Amino acid sequence: MPHIPLPPHLPGITGLLEYRQDTAAPIRELTQLILRGESSLTFAERELIASLVSHRNECRFCTAAHSAVTGILMGENETCDLVRENYETAPVSDKMKALLHIAAQAQRGGRYVTESAVERAKTAGATDLEIHDTVLIAALFCFYNKYVDGLATDLPADSGYFQLLGERIAVSYGRRPEGYEHSLSHTPNTTPETH
Amino acid sequence: MPHIPLPPHLPGITGLLEYRQDTAAPIRELTQLILRGESSLTFAERELIASLVSHRNECRFCTAAHSAVTGILMGENETCDLVRENYETAPVSDKMKALLHIAAQAQRGGRYVTESAVERAKTAGATDLEIHDTVLIAALFCFYNKYVDGLATDLPADSGYFQLLGERIAVSYGRRPEGYEHSLSHTPNTTPETH
Repeated sequence: MPHIPLPPHLPGITGLLEYRQDTAAPIRELTQLILRGESSLTFAERELIASLVSHRNECRFCTAAHSAVTGILMGENETCDLVRENYETAPVSDKMKALLHIAAQAQRGGRYVTESAVERAKTAGATDLEIHDTVLIAALFCFYNKYVDGLATDLPADSGYFQLLGERIAVSYGRRPEGYEHSLSHTPNTTPETH
Repeated sequence: MPHIPLPPHLPGITGLLEYRQDTAAPIRELTQLILRGESSLTFAERELIASLVSHRNECRFCTAAHSAVTGILMGENETCDLVRENYETAPVSDKMKALLHIAAQAQRGGRYVTESAVERAKTAGATDLEIHDTVLIAALFCFYNKYVDGLATDLPADSGYFQLLGERIAVSYGRRPEGYEHSLSHTPNTTPETH
């Protein structure tokens, strides 16, 4: 049961964004910019970072939500499952492994991000902005995870909830489910006008 | 040295907010709303939470900045120093001790916030919104701390920097330095129009 009275039909972050709508607006805007704005990282790559960080923070709601979105964007769930388990052996590019490593270090604490991890990412082709955005996404999901679990928000009763939520979020990317190769291409992605 | 090229004259968070200005806008807006917006928690009480969380995340820039602001708002530095050291024995109200305890638990992880800590805060007179805002401030500073240290931003070379920064932030509260009793009163505070 949540620590404060939240709408029972709105589990996880959704009830909190309803509870205090003035602070919800910039939280939504920051998320939209960093996850769904223009970037040389694909939508799926950014969602993979969100899913890994949420998993390491043991936030069940955010992990399930962003793993579902990643699976829908990639057209399969296995890659995201393997990334959460061990990104070093998961079927993602060397650059993504290096960025996921930076995200995992930032999740532990800002001071844990090492010079050598950053060098590895740069050697694998990551730009300064991609490294910046990786740390920003990791920090943002540490924020979300603490907000969601710190107030003991409910998990949805219906096990199909996350698939539906994932599909709704994927639609906000303006994309149909897609295969891994396409999803992890380096075509810049821009934000669709849908919310 | 920062992991990415940042303006050398802008240490800590200031260089990051300059580096990516589109994401900086909602970050600033959220901070303004939760720290400087209308609340039954005083400005100093909210800054104490920010200072404690930053200290526990070992973020030197944010701890120094928000401790300086707290000191200026309260007209003395000792209370903030004692809160960082041990809020249970610091000279703050029972309600603040209970809220600081919730913030400390959230800093450790969202799932560490206990039902008994929340009950203690409610018994001491904390409202649901104050509990919500405490968790939100704690989560926001975990975000800031990871962002600032995850990119290895510089500390200022000049030791007087934080006092000047604190005074600038305190002015944004539209208040002169004030004594503890006044600062921790329960008069609702509203945001001044200055940035």
